[in-house]
Amino acid sequence: MSKIKAVVFDVYGTLLDPISVESIARELIPDALPFVMTWRAKQLEYSWLTSLMEHYHSFWELTENALEFTCDKYRISLDAYGLKRLLDAWGHVSPYPEVPDGLKTLREKGLKLAALSNGNPEMLEKGLGNAGIQPLLDKVMSVEEVEVFKPSPKVYQLALDWLKINDPAEVGFVSSNSWDAIGATAFGFTVCWLNRAGNPLDSLGYSPAAQVADFSKVVEFFS
Amino acid sequence: MSKIKAVVFDVYGTLLDPISVESIARELIPDALPFVMTWRAKQLEYSWLTSLMEHYHSFWELTENALEFTCDKYRISLDAYGLKRLLDAWGHVSPYPEVPDGLKTLREKGLKLAALSNGNPEMLEKGLGNAGIQPLLDKVMSVEEVEVFKPSPKVYQLALDWLKINDPAEVGFVSSNSWDAIGATAFGFTVCWLNRAGNPLDSLGYSPAAQVADFSKVVEFFS
Repeated sequence: MSKIKAVVFDVYGTLLDPISVESIARELIPDALPFVMTWRAKQLEYSWLTSLMEHYHSFWELTENALEFTCDKYRISLDAYGLKRLLDAWGHVSPYPEVPDGLKTLREKGLKLAALSNGNPEMLEKGLGNAGIQPLLDKVMSVEEVEVFKPSPKVYQLALDWLKINDPAEVGFVSSNSWDAIGATAFGFTVCWLNRAGNPLDSLGYSPAAQVADFSKVVEFFS
Repeated sequence: MSKIKAVVFDVYGTLLDPISVESIARELIPDALPFVMTWRAKQLEYSWLTSLMEHYHSFWELTENALEFTCDKYRISLDAYGLKRLLDAWGHVSPYPEVPDGLKTLREKGLKLAALSNGNPEMLEKGLGNAGIQPLLDKVMSVEEVEVFKPSPKVYQLALDWLKINDPAEVGFVSSNSWDAIGATAFGFTVCWLNRAGNPLDSLGYSPAAQVADFSKVVEFFS
């Protein structure tokens, strides 16, 4: 794709696999899967709600709030140590196995690479640093600069500003979240939806430029 | 509550019971409950996402989009007649049984009463009209005027503008949705969360002035 000058990646669920959060949950909670799914859903829901309310809270705070709600909902009482282990798991997530080589291949093609995430800077530094991904990226951008979460166009604009590019179609964007892929498409990025789970696309009238099932296909699409 | 001059109500799930949507779904779909829950969750999620994307679509369109997604997700194929029956059910919802008398009691106390809903005007007119609730309200307000959904403060401001009241604490607000009760609390309304289902409060740092389990307690709170 000759027009593409840079590729911007979502982080959690796209570059980093939050499966370690699930593993810790399994050690602490009898029925861990619905618990983790609710926690993740509430984390996102809270990011949308607080953005709309025009009251910014960092993604880390919202992750704590969402955990508190999830414990209430399932009537699970965790001690401070259990809560800390679950929260700390977000800083010790691994990259999906094919990600490091894929990023290297894209860099060798002369593309600039960046992360653009809901996570606050400390959370991202820890997560991407521990996963060994940070050195493969030219830039890590957090919504914290604009104090509103994805899919606000103010967030996607951060990447254009950093790249000093006017035409969003010259920027590739990769996310595993249907709603993020749609938000980035509405903004004008050339979007590759990394649909590992084979989910249906959210029905909002926007179709990403490509839909692929694994990271190697992302590399192919932007090569 | 002598300081309260008016009470503003959310509509779907607060004044009107969307159970009829569930009844129609049961006639058409084998496992109707998760289907209807996903449909409703997506309807709200789409309202938040499109608001953040700054691309307004009416609540009616989002209801159709969310239905399309839900059919995809559960691999359910409905013909045009089935889809129409499900969508039309939103226009034929009944009030919760204790609502009409409760509204009459509040009016007799000299309070102004209004509805403030995500629904677009046509949808609200049909729903509140068929339910016989419209004559009990002084005003029906739709987010369509501001083209952004709850919990944006722009939506709650509509009620202040209509009432010509400056202090939001003089306005009572009632919703069955935790996130709506929280958004209205953050805005400054005196909020009574009508928590019929006994759900935990969303953990976002805002506590509504009251939490009650049925509509008669709403009437008591504002009397």
